[in-house]
Amino acid sequence: MHSHSPRLVAGLWCATLTPLTADGGIDHPRLVAHVQHLLAHGVAGAAPFGTTGEGPSLSVAQRRAGIDALLAAGVAPTRILPGTGCASLAETIELTRHAVRAGCVGALVLPPFFWKAPSDDGIFAWYARVIEGVADARLRILLYHLPQFSAVPLSVDLVARLAAAFPGAVAGVKDSGGDWTHTQALLARLPELSIVIGHEPDLPRLMRAGGAGTICGVANVFPDLVAALLAPNVTAQTEAQIARFIEILFAQPFLPALKSILADQRRDPVWRAVCPPLVALTAAQQASLRDALRAAGFA
Amino acid sequence: MHSHSPRLVAGLWCATLTPLTADGGIDHPRLVAHVQHLLAHGVAGAAPFGTTGEGPSLSVAQRRAGIDALLAAGVAPTRILPGTGCASLAETIELTRHAVRAGCVGALVLPPFFWKAPSDDGIFAWYARVIEGVADARLRILLYHLPQFSAVPLSVDLVARLAAAFPGAVAGVKDSGGDWTHTQALLARLPELSIVIGHEPDLPRLMRAGGAGTICGVANVFPDLVAALLAPNVTAQTEAQIARFIEILFAQPFLPALKSILADQRRDPVWRAVCPPLVALTAAQQASLRDALRAAGFA
Repeated sequence: MHSHSPRLVAGLWCATLTPLTADGGIDHPRLVAHVQHLLAHGVAGAAPFGTTGEGPSLSVAQRRAGIDALLAAGVAPTRILPGTGCASLAETIELTRHAVRAGCVGALVLPPFFWKAPSDDGIFAWYARVIEGVADARLRILLYHLPQFSAVPLSVDLVARLAAAFPGAVAGVKDSGGDWTHTQALLARLPELSIVIGHEPDLPRLMRAGGAGTICGVANVFPDLVAALLAPNVTAQTEAQIARFIEILFAQPFLPALKSILADQRRDPVWRAVCPPLVALTAAQQASLRDALRAAGFA
Repeated sequence: MHSHSPRLVAGLWCATLTPLTADGGIDHPRLVAHVQHLLAHGVAGAAPFGTTGEGPSLSVAQRRAGIDALLAAGVAPTRILPGTGCASLAETIELTRHAVRAGCVGALVLPPFFWKAPSDDGIFAWYARVIEGVADARLRILLYHLPQFSAVPLSVDLVARLAAAFPGAVAGVKDSGGDWTHTQALLARLPELSIVIGHEPDLPRLMRAGGAGTICGVANVFPDLVAALLAPNVTAQTEAQIARFIEILFAQPFLPALKSILADQRRDPVWRAVCPPLVALTAAQQASLRDALRAAGFA
């Protein structure tokens, strides 16, 4: 049973990398140019300040200003779904409210990630306070299941309970857990939600199973490859290609590696900078990454 | 070889619980009254907004206002050492700078706790950016080793490297890991630092080994018991007493339990509230906790 409301997120969205200034702030001109480039190359929308966008490393003020810079440059707010989850409830409410009032199509909201093993009741209460705190009928959130970073898994039961309590406001799940069994259970139990994943190799089976699409990091550098994975006629060659790319990417710290690839594509070393505690690739790591990509035909 | 500079923290400091208003903010009058009560009952200083103070659940603005409320009420800034660590570097700098400029004796700084398994180089870079960002010669920080929550252990090598690079600014370690081997290694390698622990049962051996003292949660409710643990003539009875108290406390979610005990002592149910995703004790849990405490002679 599908809802008649359009899905919040569908197709190819990019978990947008964040370019940084020398003092660790967001480089607005490069962020705007990158998002405009993506939208001009088949990407449906940008999800800045998620994990790939180093969102938790950025302050509320920096993320607010980043959203505003995209809007001021003319990016349609319906193409922007920022990460707004913070460890602090008040900051999550503030940033999510800012996104809603700016007209963003939705917000990707991490669970609070300091406390370990909170109960489902505690996580439910937290999301309830976020939704009630934003207090805006336009609010649409994607719950963010990313246990390998948040350390707070969102169980299928919890997602169902939140979706039932806040229909409309809870619009979907970004399932970045990389566990296909969990994704399948979400799809089966909650067909009315947008279920999107981050792990690109699972995209063909997600789309066959009725999933909504992806918010993924590879779209920063190879949007065409991700688009091919979403197509009904995806080939075995494309599937092998993404598997190989992921293998190469994860042979390095993946986020600095993704930024390094973008820096090479744009011939712009500024893209290599990351927020501590992440560390940019060394020259040797960059060379090894370039060699591996060239050997696999990605050059 | 001990340094000639006085230790940042010595003796009995309290990892201060945070009273909350109905809308999830800090209850300033109760916070002030609690800290004044502690200081009048043998506690050397208050460390608000650490883990016990639910610091990561509170916004930068809330924590700044909490520090200001204590100072406005006449609490000496030399008695205040707030937790200022955030997932975001810019926010950690902002809050730490606020504490320094307010005259606080120091700041307890968590490592960035979103990214899992960052390298020592990455954690070093993060603390270096904090110290250089605050840019104030008065800065004194306690590094916060709390791997069970931060998921980012601070190795002895990393602490030594930071202490060598930033002498004075890196003034000590709050070692809340509960691993005596790690504490011993810190004491042996870095005798010039304030090494304080949070796990109360280890206090007698910490003091015998030359440790500085404690910043601990039990001091909120039984400061006399903690003071007795720090005394050179600590008795076996006192050691048995703290062991029994910790056992009772950890039979429940420990932080809501600690707040519940304080609520009973003050006859003030407001103290029972916690920030989500923590959940306050149920009436049944409260009753069970009271029974266990009474049976053990803590009533």
